[in-house]
Amino acid sequence: MDKLFTYDVVAQDEHTHARAGVFHTAHGPIETPVFMPVGTKGAVKGITMPQLESLGTQIILGNTYHLSQRPGPDIIAEAGGLHAFNNWNKPILTDSGGFQVFSLFDTVKLSDEGVAFTTIREYGGQKVFWTPEINMDIQQKIGADIVMQLDQCPAYPSPRDFVERAVDYTTKWAERCYKAHTREDQTLFAIVQGGMHMDLRLKSLHELQEVGDFSGFGIGGYSVGEPHELMFETLEPLVSEHMPKNKPRYLMGVGNPTTLVRAVAAGVDMFDCVLPTRTGRTGTAFSSKGRMNLRNAHYKRDFGPLDPQCACEVCKNYSRAYLHHLIGQKEMVGFTLVSMHNVYYLINLMKEAREAILAHSYKEFVEKWMSSEAAADY
Amino acid sequence: MDKLFTYDVVAQDEHTHARAGVFHTAHGPIETPVFMPVGTKGAVKGITMPQLESLGTQIILGNTYHLSQRPGPDIIAEAGGLHAFNNWNKPILTDSGGFQVFSLFDTVKLSDEGVAFTTIREYGGQKVFWTPEINMDIQQKIGADIVMQLDQCPAYPSPRDFVERAVDYTTKWAERCYKAHTREDQTLFAIVQGGMHMDLRLKSLHELQEVGDFSGFGIGGYSVGEPHELMFETLEPLVSEHMPKNKPRYLMGVGNPTTLVRAVAAGVDMFDCVLPTRTGRTGTAFSSKGRMNLRNAHYKRDFGPLDPQCACEVCKNYSRAYLHHLIGQKEMVGFTLVSMHNVYYLINLMKEAREAILAHSYKEFVEKWMSSEAAADY
Repeated sequence: MDKLFTYDVVAQDEHTHARAGVFHTAHGPIETPVFMPVGTKGAVKGITMPQLESLGTQIILGNTYHLSQRPGPDIIAEAGGLHAFNNWNKPILTDSGGFQVFSLFDTVKLSDEGVAFTTIREYGGQKVFWTPEINMDIQQKIGADIVMQLDQCPAYPSPRDFVERAVDYTTKWAERCYKAHTREDQTLFAIVQGGMHMDLRLKSLHELQEVGDFSGFGIGGYSVGEPHELMFETLEPLVSEHMPKNKPRYLMGVGNPTTLVRAVAAGVDMFDCVLPTRTGRTGTAFSSKGRMNLRNAHYKRDFGPLDPQCACEVCKNYSRAYLHHLIGQKEMVGFTLVSMHNVYYLINLMKEAREAILAHSYKEFVEKWMSSEAAADY
Repeated sequence: MDKLFTYDVVAQDEHTHARAGVFHTAHGPIETPVFMPVGTKGAVKGITMPQLESLGTQIILGNTYHLSQRPGPDIIAEAGGLHAFNNWNKPILTDSGGFQVFSLFDTVKLSDEGVAFTTIREYGGQKVFWTPEINMDIQQKIGADIVMQLDQCPAYPSPRDFVERAVDYTTKWAERCYKAHTREDQTLFAIVQGGMHMDLRLKSLHELQEVGDFSGFGIGGYSVGEPHELMFETLEPLVSEHMPKNKPRYLMGVGNPTTLVRAVAAGVDMFDCVLPTRTGRTGTAFSSKGRMNLRNAHYKRDFGPLDPQCACEVCKNYSRAYLHHLIGQKEMVGFTLVSMHNVYYLINLMKEAREAILAHSYKEFVEKWMSSEAAADY
């Protein structure tokens, strides 16, 4: 375990900034680029752990905001940590909950000390005060392999001075998280903020690098409502030119297939998003031809596989007509099957991206993707 | 396949009427006693087909009333039958839908020709007319291995003359179903009615035996609200003394564990019920100590397995505390896991009953069950 929390770049594409790597955790290696399904409350919605494993999942997420409220960090710690609690024995990453906290706009009060907020009604509408130290304590009790610093994620659009202040808070909190974090079987990632402003992105990155030797970097504050092209204007140079090459780069909350393919070309390694399960629960499937709304009546007699180009167990075993029937009838299994396919779709997309990088053909991979029917839809 | 639709009794218990047997279908053998999970609309609620298989499921049910409305028999036939449509490659049984039709009290009109009813609003509230011939045509299109005759199932309590008339209709419809049924890879079971009246039960059975050589008999009209003891007053002598020994006996719609154990002692071979998945979706689990409502706050810090005496994958891998958390948070996976455990519980109960019969110790099995904490609760 002398490689614990190191990142090995095993291949660097020559024509793009894409790279294939391995990040080492106490629960095993993570091969990048990787898509990480989100188990917000300790379970990926509609998909059991053995099913996730069968889809090729390497690592799942948990969310500190939600898990801190239900069941609470002490119960998870008493259970022996989140791996023991939810029986997922591969790597887990917890988001700090910063993103969720700052979605509770009205109730949030920020001070030098920390952030005060009121939980959603489902969690009793209680007043909570988080310092970076409290947040680290919670995440250490939850016990994921990778934990994220408490950060401030501004909405889009936000005034420049608001984004600037968020960068300042994020840096200060990174420093306090870095000091407060002590678990040796767990590692801490910093989070780069700075909105759509290149200078603020670089300021954020450089300040975080001065805080300490983080084993990886989250890239937050994107996918918050801005146009895709606007994101790439700053994301691309930030990642490809400025972020350290020997650390994994994790683009937070992004799950759009085309964005994944393009972000990998810029040098991003890790992605997470609720998109595959959230759209699965509405009966919408990713496919090689773009999105398919399985509620649509024209699937009623369509006995072909969901996506003929997909090798997942859903596509191999069930027809569009059957899935249309299940979803129309609100059968839980229908939502499970479409969610499984969607999760597989993104996991497999990143697996194929990795294979292309290893084969020195990622540029062709991107070109092929960008001219596909799928890319036209996403 | 010269054994197709024959029933081999492989062991007859000496001290009870319990027997172990094998019923042969075109999709493989069914070892009895057996519990059959219900996939009303072509899917067992919350449990995928590979999961059902992992639980030891030998045969699942489909419901003709529901499947005739959505997706409709023609679509299932075009898909290649229900096995191809839902990708379950072991035996399937379809109930005729008689039970559902006669639950639509207000709208049902019975005539010598057949039964007219109005579908539920979910299915458009349409007027439908079923003759036994139409019902057989639908079930032949659906293509289960075992189909049930159209019958009339009286509610409890019903006046004697109403039950008597239901027996008459059931006999007449059995005759018409018998003539109309032609698929050779599919077999037809008759259904014994007669409510809680011993003479009517025997009348029904004898009339059905005169209709033709059915390969098995359903026992309908129980578990319709009557006390358990009242059921056994007629069920026990009916099955143990009067029903043919060389045909499987299927007690319809019964899933209470104690009733299963006792009915096997009377000589019943097959059971189905929505109970394990319906209670699973409310967060209630069967267990060796009786029912457990996992919503109960005292499971919050209970890190032991759901049922320490159960060998299912849910009990082996997840704690009560985790299931309590998932169910409290309305996570789909929680309902799936409890439903899986409950289905396993009944499948395994019948598997253990079979082993006891083969070991000539079913009397001890019943005695042990009846003195258990579980029996006290069911």
